[in-house]
Amino acid sequence: MVLTTGGAAAGPASVGVIGLGLIGGSLARALAGAGRTVVAVDADRATLAQADRAGLGVVEDIAALVAARPDVIVLCVPLRTMRPVAAELARELRAARHAPVVTDVGSVKGAVREAVRGAGVAHYVGAHPMAGTESSGFGASSAELILGVRWAVTVDQATAAVDAWTVLSLITGPLRGSVRVLSDDAHDEAVALISHVPHVVATELLSLVAAAPVRDVALGLAAGSFRDGTRVGRTEPRRTEAMVTDNAMWVASGLRVVLRDLERLVAELESNAPVAAFFDRPDPVRAMLDAASAPASAGEQAGAAGEHAGAADEHAGAAGRFRLEGAWARELTDLGRSGAVVIGVDGEDLVLR
Amino acid sequence: MVLTTGGAAAGPASVGVIGLGLIGGSLARALAGAGRTVVAVDADRATLAQADRAGLGVVEDIAALVAARPDVIVLCVPLRTMRPVAAELARELRAARHAPVVTDVGSVKGAVREAVRGAGVAHYVGAHPMAGTESSGFGASSAELILGVRWAVTVDQATAAVDAWTVLSLITGPLRGSVRVLSDDAHDEAVALISHVPHVVATELLSLVAAAPVRDVALGLAAGSFRDGTRVGRTEPRRTEAMVTDNAMWVASGLRVVLRDLERLVAELESNAPVAAFFDRPDPVRAMLDAASAPASAGEQAGAAGEHAGAADEHAGAAGRFRLEGAWARELTDLGRSGAVVIGVDGEDLVLR
Repeated sequence: MVLTTGGAAAGPASVGVIGLGLIGGSLARALAGAGRTVVAVDADRATLAQADRAGLGVVEDIAALVAARPDVIVLCVPLRTMRPVAAELARELRAARHAPVVTDVGSVKGAVREAVRGAGVAHYVGAHPMAGTESSGFGASSAELILGVRWAVTVDQATAAVDAWTVLSLITGPLRGSVRVLSDDAHDEAVALISHVPHVVATELLSLVAAAPVRDVALGLAAGSFRDGTRVGRTEPRRTEAMVTDNAMWVASGLRVVLRDLERLVAELESNAPVAAFFDRPDPVRAMLDAASAPASAGEQAGAAGEHAGAADEHAGAAGRFRLEGAWARELTDLGRSGAVVIGVDGEDLVLR
Repeated sequence: MVLTTGGAAAGPASVGVIGLGLIGGSLARALAGAGRTVVAVDADRATLAQADRAGLGVVEDIAALVAARPDVIVLCVPLRTMRPVAAELARELRAARHAPVVTDVGSVKGAVREAVRGAGVAHYVGAHPMAGTESSGFGASSAELILGVRWAVTVDQATAAVDAWTVLSLITGPLRGSVRVLSDDAHDEAVALISHVPHVVATELLSLVAAAPVRDVALGLAAGSFRDGTRVGRTEPRRTEAMVTDNAMWVASGLRVVLRDLERLVAELESNAPVAAFFDRPDPVRAMLDAASAPASAGEQAGAAGEHAGAADEHAGAAGRFRLEGAWARELTDLGRSGAVVIGVDGEDLVLR
């Protein structure tokens, strides 16, 4: 593997992409566009033909993908098929005596690490791009969807420094992304709050209208704010179900808080008690979101490709270089938790801000 | 009052606007832009000066506004001040022996009708434009925000046909809007489901993050879908509080359904039971929203001014002309409930599609 020293030329030269849905397809397009050798596979023949026509290097199966000996393999299959695909990949890697870095794009990290390591795949580093739309499939994929977005990368005590470095150089190099390095737990709890619980709630808001006697009146009056607020509720139901069940513990604990708070509000409304406090509680977060979105506010396109960058600005305390040595995994996840973002690699070091 | 026969020239020649916030300011700008005589007032001196500089015809108080004898007066004050303002308006109208049509833009209709009629204002017709952003105040107002949007207009057995006609000609004429005519109850239940309950839920999603130990990690990962999904949760808290408390009965009944459904889902997640059904329930509504948003999807701007038009297409059965005679109020609200939309006036008749 040729390792360069940061910037768009950094990172591994060849990448295998397993699964060409919305994210896998976007990743393959972005990497091919950045001059990387891409070898891609999908279980669906029609998708594979589509990717072939789009000029991506496709192969027939995982065995052929492994035979191409990519430096990194990215699992982009749905969460519900992660386990069997990881098992097949492990078999083929053993047969080919090839040991690349393996990463993924799943929205839950603890369950994926368990599946991948349980299958016997070594050199695993978790990753999750903050990108997506309510659409799915290769047809909706584009390089723009994934370029420049915020990622989470998860590591633990068993992660090899060079494997973490490889994934970070791929994301911050050709993919032009920025990264919070986290533990699986910190990631999964945070994502429950900002993604999985909101998906559940948006689904419920749609169901509420669907079941109402005034359904047609309601939809006739529904304006942009209803469409925006329930957009994630229109995600393919099996995809949402998999995110939620794979992160069931954190989702359930978030929903318990929602239930407690709404139960109290309803009791207050029904008894004509004051409810002002309910509407003031999110104030610090409101201010942070307002500050983060101020520059782009009026003209911002919040449509298909609007998932770029984090909503809160980071504490800048940790800016500088970080060497992957000693207790680096614990130190780096502590830094990630308190706001540090990896924005590049420089030789063997990471560049933080 | 000169009555013309439909199109942009239709409707009353002069309009009084009480309250120059986001909606009142937008309405005044749009009507002035369409060549109507606008006389406007606001309790806040700085706002009044701003409106004056914007070229709107402003006066010092409600007495002066009434003295200008506008054909229609639109109450655009916050719900929480509707009662005292209606009382003052009633006094001034009696003193001036002027009896214009009075309407409003409140997001709750039953409570406003009670307040306005309780104060002794005659010729009242309820109205509610499906327009708005999470911003507020005259500074955020614009004609674009209100032009061409979907409105609800509410009437009952006591509404005079000519008063309803006047408001409908104003909305479908210079304001280029379209209207569902409804009963207060149908409106208030529908709006609870598509606006007030979603506002409550978005507020709760922000609070959930605000109170979490992983708050900063969560905000650092939050992408466009979180910002979109919680946008209405960033509305000025007192405004949301007033909408919710003025529509407390319907909001509480919607929230009870949400509580029942989420309670069941949490129990299933905690016991590893199947949850597929939860995610399939909104299917008919998903399909309707997808169909409605298809033409505008990719390039759609979902930002500040993106509140135009209804989300569901209407049943076309009622297309044609409608005469305001006999049991017109009941017939028209039945038609509105089953999907008919008023798109203009033609002589004394309404044009439906």
